[in-house]
Amino acid sequence: MPLKKPHSGLQNGDAGHEKDSRHFGNGSQQQNLDLNDHEGEHDLPGVLEVNNDSPVVNGIGTSLTNGGLNLHSTVKRKLDGEKDYVFDKRLRYSVRQNESNCRFRDIVVRKEDGFTHILLSSQTSDNNALTPEIMKEVRRALCNASADDSKLLLLSAVGSVFCSGLDYSYLIGRLSNDRRKESTRIAEAIRDFVKAFIQFKKPIVVAINGPALGLGASILPLCDIVWASEKAWFQTPYATIRLTPAGCSSYTFPQILGVALANEMLFCGRKLTAQEACSRGLVSQVFWPTTFSQEVMLRVKEMASCSAVVLEESKCLVRSFLKSGLEDVNEKECQMLKQLWSSSKGLDSLFSYLQDKIYEV
Amino acid sequence: MPLKKPHSGLQNGDAGHEKDSRHFGNGSQQQNLDLNDHEGEHDLPGVLEVNNDSPVVNGIGTSLTNGGLNLHSTVKRKLDGEKDYVFDKRLRYSVRQNESNCRFRDIVVRKEDGFTHILLSSQTSDNNALTPEIMKEVRRALCNASADDSKLLLLSAVGSVFCSGLDYSYLIGRLSNDRRKESTRIAEAIRDFVKAFIQFKKPIVVAINGPALGLGASILPLCDIVWASEKAWFQTPYATIRLTPAGCSSYTFPQILGVALANEMLFCGRKLTAQEACSRGLVSQVFWPTTFSQEVMLRVKEMASCSAVVLEESKCLVRSFLKSGLEDVNEKECQMLKQLWSSSKGLDSLFSYLQDKIYEV
Amino acid sequence: MPLKKPHSGLQNGDAGHEKDSRHFGNGSQQQNLDLNDHEGEHDLPGVLEVNNDSPVVNGIGTSLTNGGLNLHSTVKRKLDGEKDYVFDKRLRYSVRQNESNCRFRDIVVRKEDGFTHILLSSQTSDNNALTPEIMKEVRRALCNASADDSKLLLLSAVGSVFCSGLDYSYLIGRLSNDRRKESTRIAEAIRDFVKAFIQFKKPIVVAINGPALGLGASILPLCDIVWASEKAWFQTPYATIRLTPAGCSSYTFPQILGVALANEMLFCGRKLTAQEACSRGLVSQVFWPTTFSQEVMLRVKEMASCSAVVLEESKCLVRSFLKSGLEDVNEKECQMLKQLWSSSKGLDSLFSYLQDKIYEV
Repeated sequence: MPLKKPHSGLQNGDAGHEKDSRHFGNGSQQQNLDLNDHEGEHDLPGVLEVNNDSPVVNGIGTSLTNGGLNLHSTVKRKLDGEKDYVFDKRLRYSVRQNESNCRFRDIVVRKEDGFTHILLSSQTSDNNALTPEIMKEVRRALCNASADDSKLLLLSAVGSVFCSGLDYSYLIGRLSNDRRKESTRIAEAIRDFVKAFIQFKKPIVVAINGPALGLGASILPLCDIVWASEKAWFQTPYATIRLTPAGCSSYTFPQILGVALANEMLFCGRKLTAQEACSRGLVSQVFWPTTFSQEVMLRVKEMASCSAVVLEESKCLVRSFLKSGLEDVNEKECQMLKQLWSSSKGLDSLFSYLQDKIYEV
Repeated sequence: MPLKKPHSGLQNGDAGHEKDSRHFGNGSQQQNLDLNDHEGEHDLPGVLEVNNDSPVVNGIGTSLTNGGLNLHSTVKRKLDGEKDYVFDKRLRYSVRQNESNCRFRDIVVRKEDGFTHILLSSQTSDNNALTPEIMKEVRRALCNASADDSKLLLLSAVGSVFCSGLDYSYLIGRLSNDRRKESTRIAEAIRDFVKAFIQFKKPIVVAINGPALGLGASILPLCDIVWASEKAWFQTPYATIRLTPAGCSSYTFPQILGVALANEMLFCGRKLTAQEACSRGLVSQVFWPTTFSQEVMLRVKEMASCSAVVLEESKCLVRSFLKSGLEDVNEKECQMLKQLWSSSKGLDSLFSYLQDKIYEV
Repeated sequence: MPLKKPHSGLQNGDAGHEKDSRHFGNGSQQQNLDLNDHEGEHDLPGVLEVNNDSPVVNGIGTSLTNGGLNLHSTVKRKLDGEKDYVFDKRLRYSVRQNESNCRFRDIVVRKEDGFTHILLSSQTSDNNALTPEIMKEVRRALCNASADDSKLLLLSAVGSVFCSGLDYSYLIGRLSNDRRKESTRIAEAIRDFVKAFIQFKKPIVVAINGPALGLGASILPLCDIVWASEKAWFQTPYATIRLTPAGCSSYTFPQILGVALANEMLFCGRKLTAQEACSRGLVSQVFWPTTFSQEVMLRVKEMASCSAVVLEESKCLVRSFLKSGLEDVNEKECQMLKQLWSSSKGLDSLFSYLQDKIYEV
């Protein structure tokens, strides 16, 4: 059952502004931006479930990677009546030109009918690993989505991996350079990234197409609905790689999975299959890989037909009792990581572990 | 294995008083009331599991519907030594005659040996849907049960549905009439109904014979033990019908099911089978439909043989850390519903959804 | 895959001191103590999984029972470079000679490479039932393990039962003697025992080889990782034996299992198989009985290779939000038990139940 193609637009060129960008330019950049928008994806599932073996999906995958954006210039954008809905001009054109010129490089943002779709599609790291720069892009996209007229957020990934967590080669590189400064910078990037999820007021749906590791798994309980492909699996081997938990997992994992399983994940790197994660409460439902993206889209569109007020207020009710607690946990976790990274002992331990891994490979 | 017939009495004629009814009449009404008590049910299971296809059960079903009460006048009540236990005279006869005359219309209350059995058996709504009036009856029954010598409460339903939640046709009717007044009245009725469960000090066992929807499912975590028939299923499609969560489900569902599944239920109307609800923690145990009521009765009687102090203090220990939190949640949820119903936008959204449903049918 | 034999020593002769033992003797007792140390266990699994049918394991079982300690005097201790690691001299020799002479009678404590292994091996009660004296031994061992250089604690049991909870024949005996005094003493022993688990800062791994009942099951959520043999099962029939919950189970069980199942366990004595306990979150993972101890040892050693700081700080993050709450719950629960035992009614109820049981047997 193919999904109806929505009138959508890649938001790759927008953003670049934080909440204070309330002044708008004259639209002179519009054409430019439009050239960079690509809407030729015939097959929405591919967006979620990029499979490099399939030529069709591969094409979409390419279109979604920012480097390949111009390949689809033959595909014309349909300028119909819903255009204003799809493109929020107020957000698109900020007077702060230097910021608005800044594109999303490692994520793709699509404005769909009633919801925003953020896809992890990292160009600067492998397997959608997170760097402070990528986390900042996600934050900016969340910030935009919180201010626009979308009713909810869909988060997914391009490629076969959802998110492999912190980028450890980046981590090692930076921390070896300037331990004191970089430990603070990276810990704060994590803190702000996680905080953006805690504070996001619209429902967040996550579609997990493949492995979700470390921070990529830890943030799932900060999202509202988690749908996973049968191919997905989950692992947070913090202690194994000589780190303390992040992403509020020290609080949310015991809450959801029970202390016994949560600690096995945090201390021993216990890996959960999609089915296990579902039966233990981390995942809402598991779908068959081949129809995964259709199932997700169908449900997200159904949700997006709800009243915006009801969605936001329901989330507010569900989250209000957790929010301040989660913010505290996040602060503590990041404080702990900073301490660990700025101590030579903590760093040595991390380095020796990660270097062993590199030699093993 | 048929259960031993307990010496029991329908409490349909009692109640009608709130907590302040501490003065008692002279008992002149006793005979009258006794005529309305019906104890001829030969087969206790039927009480829980009324199946309209079976003549025996059907008979019981009829005996339990208040309109059919006089059909069983041939069945004599055994006035044996346990009579005083079964009927708590102090509660039965209030000086506030106009109140004590008021009968339970939509529920049946049976005083069993050591426990009180409340059965939803709505005459004024379909599928045991809840109206403010019915919720008030349940509150009154809870209030009586809290003051009498029963050690615990069994809540079940007559018919094939446990409870279909709020009565939406009632809701539409009333809110179209006088939005401002009715939104307050109905929201307060829900608040007080839910509060009565939160504050009830004796253990509450619920036996779910069939579908439990909306508020009928939301209150389950406020009860202590939830036994379900294989035929039961659970759904809380609040957002789908343009409502925000009620019955403390915005707090208890994430707590028990994890945020991922809880939100899928609250936002997408995800339906849980009895087995799913059990494996995820909403239900204590699932029984085969044909022996469901025997299994429940066996266990409830076993529990009722415990010390009353131990039961109440154990519940107190389990609940004390939740109680004040739950009361806050309940207030917030009902406040939100009131706002939604008193805003023309919220109401339009609800109406248009419900009317669509009616046209669909 | 047999496990490498660690350089280990039975700590049976150490301890006997509380946290204030900071002064150290001259080591004159060393030889003496060494004579009591037995390291000839060829096969570590046996330590966890004592099976009286197997001669090898049986030998180990015997070696672990304190009465049989001298049977292994032919096995020489290897005094190699790691000796200082294995034996913490500072802890071993207290100037408080009368205390340091005091041996562990009902538990066995082994210092392994990177972790402390405590085995319940009760000589003074059946089925590893707990008395105030045994609970005090466990507390002392926890206190020692918290101060030494071990990174984590492994708790398991000798025999086919993990722990059968409070020793009821002890309870009846003492309470019949001097209700007022003994109810206070026993309740305080439970409180301090449970508190020691709540406050222990290093990760606690529990290996459940067989039935875990009452307090023996209740403390599991206070531990961090719970691995169970397929043969294990779990039951907390507090209300059934006329007691209120202990070991913080009134808080942790609803938290982990959901109120519905937790209450079924606390009120109705619902028994959980290892698999059920695992799927509901009480247990991290279930292993096949024949390889159980190998699997546990493999994982514990892997954990013990982690950084001590990371392990302790991770546990601190996971537990910090629970700790003060748990201490309150523990106080309340023990207060309740004391009240129950010091009231003649509560005691009668307990006695009549337990005597019925004795007659039944």
